Amino acid sequence: MKTFYRPNLYLALIHFPVENKNGETITSAVTNLDLHDIARAARTFGVKRFYVVTPLKDQQDLTRKIISHWVEGYGAKYNPKRKEALGLVSVKGQYADAVKEISLENKGIKPVTVATTAKACDKSLGYEELREKLKQEKPYLLNFGTAWGLASDFMAGVDYVLDPISGPGSYNHLSVRSAVSIILDRLISGR
Amino acid sequence: MKTFYRPNLYLALIHFPVENKNGETITSAVTNLDLHDIARAARTFGVKRFYVVTPLKDQQDLTRKIISHWVEGYGAKYNPKRKEALGLVSVKGQYADAVKEISLENKGIKPVTVATTAKACDKSLGYEELREKLKQEKPYLLNFGTAWGLASDFMAGVDYVLDPISGPGSYNHLSVRSAVSIILDRLISGR
Repeated sequence: MKTFYRPNLYLALIHFPVENKNGETITSAVTNLDLHDIARAARTFGVKRFYVVTPLKDQQDLTRKIISHWVEGYGAKYNPKRKEALGLVSVKGQYADAVKEISLENKGIKPVTVATTAKACDKSLGYEELREKLKQEKPYLLNFGTAWGLASDFMAGVDYVLDPISGPGSYNHLSVRSAVSIILDRLISGR
Repeated sequence: MKTFYRPNLYLALIHFPVENKNGETITSAVTNLDLHDIARAARTFGVKRFYVVTPLKDQQDLTRKIISHWVEGYGAKYNPKRKEALGLVSVKGQYADAVKEISLENKGIKPVTVATTAKACDKSLGYEELREKLKQEKPYLLNFGTAWGLASDFMAGVDYVLDPISGPGSYNHLSVRSAVSIILDRLISGR
C-alpha cells in the first residue's frame, strides 16, 4: 500500500537564470505546454503553488493571459479540471518574489530551497532523504530549470540539490515536463 | 539501491480509437511535443520502440517529417541526444501493424498487451504485479491513449489494464506525457 504525504511543497519553473546548450546563462521563453503539464501534475500531487519565474515583461503578460483563459475565461467553462490545475500558477518576475510570498504564507518561515538537475552532483540528496525532510512542517520550494537547466549561480544558492533521474542506461535527457512528473510522483507517492 | 529492469517493453501512443470529452470515439491529431517527450522518456527507461499509431495519412506524413528532421536532418547534428530518442519512433497506420512487427522481432511471439487509463477499473493490475510479469522474456506492449483516453473497444481487446496513477486527492488529470513518464519510472526504476 502506498503512503501519501501532503507536504508543504511549492514548485518553481525558472526561465532565468538557466543555461543554453553551450553553458551560457540565458533567459528562456515560456512554453505553453509546460504550464499545462506541470500545473496538472502539481494539482495531482498536492503541490501548494506553481511559480512561473521570468523577468521578461511580455512573457509574464503572455503567461497571465493563458492562465486567465483557463481560470476565468472560456477555458474554465470548457474544461473545469484544467481550471483547477492552472489556478495553482503564479507568475513572478524574480525568484526572490516567490520565496518572499511563501514566507509570508508561512508565518515568516522561509522555504527550504531544492534544485533539480540532470547532472550528477557530489552532494545531492536522494529521494528518500528528501521525502523524510518533507515530513517537517517547513515549506519547501522545489526548483526546475527550463532550456539546458538551472545556471550554476542559481544552483550555488539553494539549500539542497536533488539526485538526477536515471534509467537503466546513461541516457537521461528528459523534458522538464517529464522530470517534474516523475519527481513529484517519487516524492509524494513514494518509492 | 534501486534495481533496474531491462524488460522487453514496447510502447504505443494511440490516436485512434480514442474518446473525446463526450465519450465518443474519435481520431486525435498528433502533437509534436508528445513525440519528443515520450521518445525521450522511452529512451531514458530502455523501451525498445515507441509506436505512433494514426490511421490518417497526412498525420503519418507529418510525424515522419518531424522524426526525419531529428534523426537524419539538421536536428540530428544540432542535438544528437534528441536523435537517439526520436530514432525509437515508428509510425503505423494500424495498431495491428505494431503488434505484427513486434511478433516478427520476437520469433513469432505476440506481445502481451497492456492498456493504461486514468479511470478506476475493476480488474486493473498493480505496478508491482506488472513489474513482476515484465521479468518474463515475453514482449510487452504498453498502450497510451491521447485525447480523453483509449476507447472502450480498445480497452476490451487488451490482455491487461494498468492501475491509474493517483495522488493524495481525487484529481488525476495528467497529460499523456506525464503519465508515460511516471508509468515508465514506476515500472523500470521500481517503486
